[in-house]
Amino acid sequence: MDFAFDAETDELRSRLEAFMDEHVYPAEPVFEQQLAERDDPWSSVPIVEDLKTEARSRGLWNLFLPGEHGAGLTNLQYAPLAEITGRSPQLAPTVLNCAAPDTGNMEVLAMFGSPKHHEQWLRPLLDGEIRSAFAMTEPDVASSDARNIETKIVRDGDSYVISGRKWYISGAMNPNCRIFIVMGKTDPDAEPHRQQSMILVPRDTPGVQVKRGMNVFGYTDGDHGGHAEVVFDDVRVPAENLLQEEGSGFAIAQARLGPGRIHHCMRLIGMAERGIELMCRRTISRTAFGKPIAQQGVVQDWIAESRVRVEQLRLLVLKTAWLMDTVGNQGAHTEIQSIKIATPASVEWILDKAIQAHGAGGVSQDFPLAGLWAAARMLRLADGPDEVHKRSLARRELKKYLPERK
Amino acid sequence: MDFAFDAETDELRSRLEAFMDEHVYPAEPVFEQQLAERDDPWSSVPIVEDLKTEARSRGLWNLFLPGEHGAGLTNLQYAPLAEITGRSPQLAPTVLNCAAPDTGNMEVLAMFGSPKHHEQWLRPLLDGEIRSAFAMTEPDVASSDARNIETKIVRDGDSYVISGRKWYISGAMNPNCRIFIVMGKTDPDAEPHRQQSMILVPRDTPGVQVKRGMNVFGYTDGDHGGHAEVVFDDVRVPAENLLQEEGSGFAIAQARLGPGRIHHCMRLIGMAERGIELMCRRTISRTAFGKPIAQQGVVQDWIAESRVRVEQLRLLVLKTAWLMDTVGNQGAHTEIQSIKIATPASVEWILDKAIQAHGAGGVSQDFPLAGLWAAARMLRLADGPDEVHKRSLARRELKKYLPERK
Amino acid sequence: MDFAFDAETDELRSRLEAFMDEHVYPAEPVFEQQLAERDDPWSSVPIVEDLKTEARSRGLWNLFLPGEHGAGLTNLQYAPLAEITGRSPQLAPTVLNCAAPDTGNMEVLAMFGSPKHHEQWLRPLLDGEIRSAFAMTEPDVASSDARNIETKIVRDGDSYVISGRKWYISGAMNPNCRIFIVMGKTDPDAEPHRQQSMILVPRDTPGVQVKRGMNVFGYTDGDHGGHAEVVFDDVRVPAENLLQEEGSGFAIAQARLGPGRIHHCMRLIGMAERGIELMCRRTISRTAFGKPIAQQGVVQDWIAESRVRVEQLRLLVLKTAWLMDTVGNQGAHTEIQSIKIATPASVEWILDKAIQAHGAGGVSQDFPLAGLWAAARMLRLADGPDEVHKRSLARRELKKYLPERK
Amino acid sequence: MDFAFDAETDELRSRLEAFMDEHVYPAEPVFEQQLAERDDPWSSVPIVEDLKTEARSRGLWNLFLPGEHGAGLTNLQYAPLAEITGRSPQLAPTVLNCAAPDTGNMEVLAMFGSPKHHEQWLRPLLDGEIRSAFAMTEPDVASSDARNIETKIVRDGDSYVISGRKWYISGAMNPNCRIFIVMGKTDPDAEPHRQQSMILVPRDTPGVQVKRGMNVFGYTDGDHGGHAEVVFDDVRVPAENLLQEEGSGFAIAQARLGPGRIHHCMRLIGMAERGIELMCRRTISRTAFGKPIAQQGVVQDWIAESRVRVEQLRLLVLKTAWLMDTVGNQGAHTEIQSIKIATPASVEWILDKAIQAHGAGGVSQDFPLAGLWAAARMLRLADGPDEVHKRSLARRELKKYLPERK
Repeated sequence: MDFAFDAETDELRSRLEAFMDEHVYPAEPVFEQQLAERDDPWSSVPIVEDLKTEARSRGLWNLFLPGEHGAGLTNLQYAPLAEITGRSPQLAPTVLNCAAPDTGNMEVLAMFGSPKHHEQWLRPLLDGEIRSAFAMTEPDVASSDARNIETKIVRDGDSYVISGRKWYISGAMNPNCRIFIVMGKTDPDAEPHRQQSMILVPRDTPGVQVKRGMNVFGYTDGDHGGHAEVVFDDVRVPAENLLQEEGSGFAIAQARLGPGRIHHCMRLIGMAERGIELMCRRTISRTAFGKPIAQQGVVQDWIAESRVRVEQLRLLVLKTAWLMDTVGNQGAHTEIQSIKIATPASVEWILDKAIQAHGAGGVSQDFPLAGLWAAARMLRLADGPDEVHKRSLARRELKKYLPERK
Repeated sequence: MDFAFDAETDELRSRLEAFMDEHVYPAEPVFEQQLAERDDPWSSVPIVEDLKTEARSRGLWNLFLPGEHGAGLTNLQYAPLAEITGRSPQLAPTVLNCAAPDTGNMEVLAMFGSPKHHEQWLRPLLDGEIRSAFAMTEPDVASSDARNIETKIVRDGDSYVISGRKWYISGAMNPNCRIFIVMGKTDPDAEPHRQQSMILVPRDTPGVQVKRGMNVFGYTDGDHGGHAEVVFDDVRVPAENLLQEEGSGFAIAQARLGPGRIHHCMRLIGMAERGIELMCRRTISRTAFGKPIAQQGVVQDWIAESRVRVEQLRLLVLKTAWLMDTVGNQGAHTEIQSIKIATPASVEWILDKAIQAHGAGGVSQDFPLAGLWAAARMLRLADGPDEVHKRSLARRELKKYLPERK
Repeated sequence: MDFAFDAETDELRSRLEAFMDEHVYPAEPVFEQQLAERDDPWSSVPIVEDLKTEARSRGLWNLFLPGEHGAGLTNLQYAPLAEITGRSPQLAPTVLNCAAPDTGNMEVLAMFGSPKHHEQWLRPLLDGEIRSAFAMTEPDVASSDARNIETKIVRDGDSYVISGRKWYISGAMNPNCRIFIVMGKTDPDAEPHRQQSMILVPRDTPGVQVKRGMNVFGYTDGDHGGHAEVVFDDVRVPAENLLQEEGSGFAIAQARLGPGRIHHCMRLIGMAERGIELMCRRTISRTAFGKPIAQQGVVQDWIAESRVRVEQLRLLVLKTAWLMDTVGNQGAHTEIQSIKIATPASVEWILDKAIQAHGAGGVSQDFPLAGLWAAARMLRLADGPDEVHKRSLARRELKKYLPERK
Repeated sequence: MDFAFDAETDELRSRLEAFMDEHVYPAEPVFEQQLAERDDPWSSVPIVEDLKTEARSRGLWNLFLPGEHGAGLTNLQYAPLAEITGRSPQLAPTVLNCAAPDTGNMEVLAMFGSPKHHEQWLRPLLDGEIRSAFAMTEPDVASSDARNIETKIVRDGDSYVISGRKWYISGAMNPNCRIFIVMGKTDPDAEPHRQQSMILVPRDTPGVQVKRGMNVFGYTDGDHGGHAEVVFDDVRVPAENLLQEEGSGFAIAQARLGPGRIHHCMRLIGMAERGIELMCRRTISRTAFGKPIAQQGVVQDWIAESRVRVEQLRLLVLKTAWLMDTVGNQGAHTEIQSIKIATPASVEWILDKAIQAHGAGGVSQDFPLAGLWAAARMLRLADGPDEVHKRSLARRELKKYLPERK
């Protein structure tokens, strides 16, 4: 259980922090400005491309991706880097080509894609030329139970035909999002975890209808391509677009979600740190009832509690990363669920306090806090709601004490 | 301490509920549709005017306003009506001409305005022809301490000249918002609570610059005229625009805030009831892990806790209304602070659970929950943050036990 | 919904407060002293008998009991009186002959007992000459589900024979506790709510074994006769000892629990008020870091939050009392559950803060706070744990939205 | 940041777990039995001496003490061992000679005592022959602010004369507690942190009056020598009894408190683990409403949340231990405060849930839960209340953002 950062990580942290200080933080207001001025509310903006070029030239690129296709870092190496990007979560992950959902999609393609998939989709994604989406959640069923998924993927000769409705498909409103990984059922009569398959659907396939952007507490997240509702209306793609074989969809989803969850948690810690910094700076600078707000006991209570929570979360995330590196994602299952349960809820709490300390400014567009809060809140729902993870984790805990079944 | 609804209240409740069922709830999707289609993101939409006409014809108009100018109800009579409007808070309060900030502004004009003010501004507000704004909060200071206000109101001959910057001026983005009640300092050297004055500033006065709409968690609240940042750049108005005399601003603000706070709390209870209803309906209709979500123990815990909280809040609001009616706003000071502390926080909690029970739908524009949540959250800040009210209430509690000073 | 105190209540409140000030509060240290000095750790002490005589002479006696046998007050009349006794819960309820479990037992006997039961047991209880116990909870099953009860009551000729094990039988360690009302099953094959019966078992019946006192967080509650573990080993009593007919036990229990729960909640509110008073007095009188602790923001937050919570609880308790008076206990079912859920939890929170404000003194025997806390905590378990009440209340809430079954 | 257990630690863990399984857990009921039967409610019982002999023979002795006098373990090595002892906190720490307050006292004597002190007091303490007490907290002032201490230590020739009143002096009721380390003021006019000194006072010195045992939520903790109120009435001891020089008392207290706090936190984690285990076992074995309680969603929520919290706490404690080992107690100041803030509060929460899951059994003497809870609750007060630590930690956090003072 050694969480010390090795020399490579330390070097990358320094390099990344320099990049943040020199380029990312100064670009935040420019980014906001360009977003406000663009014509298409779902498109990216020039500053992002500029920063991508700069990041790549500095060797800060695809850090999330282990193995030959990416930077080859371990989870433990990547964790402190992802945390740093979380301090500016609208910009930094994207410009390092480390933003969800592309990260998870690249992992899926790298692990489960064919050479042709690599060539056609993984390569331009790795190069940051296109974006991608992951289409799993459906509006018409409780998607927290993956067995409820109703989208159909039906074999028809050399093709598969896909029909169904998805929503909250992050990134899919961006016109540069070119490829969807779609989860659906190929065999509703198979055993529960072998009914699903995943298939690649290019955005421009006939029958793909990107209907509208879904909101998150008033935010469209248009800077990230939003969260689309997408209808697949008898969409026909070549059979070779299927990832692996029929029935492997659930397993691929599991493989994708482990790293996805920890990446979110790493970034959430950076978001919390940003929140604490802003809370301190603001309360030092504002005076009420005769003294700086920072001297109010209640505010100090918030700050202390926030620090104590973040320290605990970070260590649990690091342990989880270390476990994933050493015993594999399956062996780290309890820990991945633990950070998924603990991190969004605690970070939401911290950001709520930072908001309150800012008064009306806290809920405004002049500070990143309300947006960070909405992202944290969303993660109590996304990738499985807290309640489903708790239920599963509790059952595993209880199993320790159940009499053996023969 | 008699909270029973009298015959008049019961009759009004029935009439209002019929109006809600027949007109308001069915109009909600139309309203959303018209909002999406309008050109000016800050303007009102036709359905609102239609409903206003209908409401007025049914005698559901200006219910909030006691005395000759309004419906003449007591606070206790108005409370259950305001609660009902809170079930559809984007539409109902407005179409009954009972929406903040106009309500508070009409009260101020009715109580403290001159006959000329009545003629010029109160009359069209009572008729729902124009909107108004209340300009108090400033971006550059901690406005939770009213003594921090920096806007200057300087006498110059027969005029006053106003200079300062305000933000979160609700309603002010709406082009039909014609009159601002502005709080500023006429005498920074007077004793702390006699420094401020209030003055009427027509929107079209030279020097009034409505700069931009401020957001609340991603929401512009454009349907209510948003929350404007407004700069007053040497704005000159006739001296007769001053409300009462110089130095009376703090007292007027206090008089305005008591009813304002309880109206918000009444509506919040309706919002909570809407949330509980939606939470029940949704969890009954969705199935996960083999049974309706409503049968999950954790969900039942949320529902029970929500019901128990709402019942407590409602009673405290009713008691506060009754006290205001019987001993006056000053005598109900502790209770007004108590509901201001308890209601937004508890209702926020309830709405959070209703959101979680909806999955991604909960944070979306397809359900009113995320918007209701943002409104509740905002009220932990607006009209004095929780912490300021708690501090003040605690001091009064402690005073009971302090040795008498001679 | 009129909660105003009528003239009789106001007069009784004044009389009771005078009695508290003149006799009860001054007796608290004497009581502690006598408890420490007695030989039998389960017996009562002389000061209690003195105060009983005084209370009765002042007409402060059996206030809890409606109808001819008691003071004849309504629940709404009794509520503020019970609250006052809650300020000194170890002494005041007992000396007014208003202490659990005798109160519930007297109610049961008054409502369901035969004339002979009245003569033999109700009369001396009403006169405060003997004590009684209610034997329901069992150590070997989850008693939160009444259907689990395993004690057997078997008819044998003119007798019933009782066998089973009970615990947490409050008051039963006191040698002056002469009569047990025992809940058991007469017919395990009947439908679930007709299996149980209640029967009177005099303490001196052969086979009754009072084994030991059970603790509550280290407290024996020996001043109230403790909480006994009692074994009934083939205990034979005359058939006439059965209350009502066989199978009526569950209904009697329900009838007993409604008033019992609200009495606890009334007193809990007085306990909370005592806690707030002590918290204020202590923090005013102690200085740390250069100012009285009462001026610390965090402490003020506790005080304000406590006040706000108590006001809400009291109103909900009053409404429940009023409902029980006007529509009956059955009609007040949801409200009784609501106060049972809300009151112990909130009062526990308040007392925890009062303890913390006292430092080590808070957990000590020199202040009543830790004892009050344990009593409040126990009530999250006793008379049905929170979770069972929440589950039941939620189901009723959900029922409003379920499709009608035909 | 390497928290892996080294070979020595692993070996000791195995040895300790074997000892727990073979001797400690089986001794728990015997211990309770002997406690119930002893004459002196403050004395130790034979089983403890037996287990001490066994533990020592197994090399499980003085594990807490670094350096030559003890087992020489680092904090990181000791942490997992202390956690294991926390699973049986009434027995295990004592029988390993690792129980507070002796541990802290031995550390003080080892670090700051003279050779004569070592010979006279440290040696028998290390051998487990006598017990000791640490007399700091006073009943008459807010001891959370160490500057408030009023006990006087006055030089008079070759002696010091001590006068003052202390309470919650843990262990001091035990007749085998032979030596007190007393904190008092030698110079009330010195700068705040140089006013205090520490001095050794043998229990049998004339003027030492051990008055009574103080309770913790009804518990006397008589098995650990209780928590005494002690009056020092012109107690005269030789000047050589002073530790170090006059004015060094505050610094010695700080040196003592760091390890003391982390030891408590380590054990608290073991207490939490015991609570989780009991919660699981109980809810698996009890049935209500047709299924094992362990299948209730609310109970599973508690179990999951408990697991997630414990994992976070343990890591933060390990990091703190590692920091103390590598950069010293001063460098680990923030972390020591963090675990002192987080651990008792979280563990209290977990134990509360375990209690609730046990029904009445949870608050009884038949399960260790209520006692564990009281110990955890006490630690939110002892060694500095949460609020003082939070205030201090927040100030350090805020300092990062304060402008440099010149």
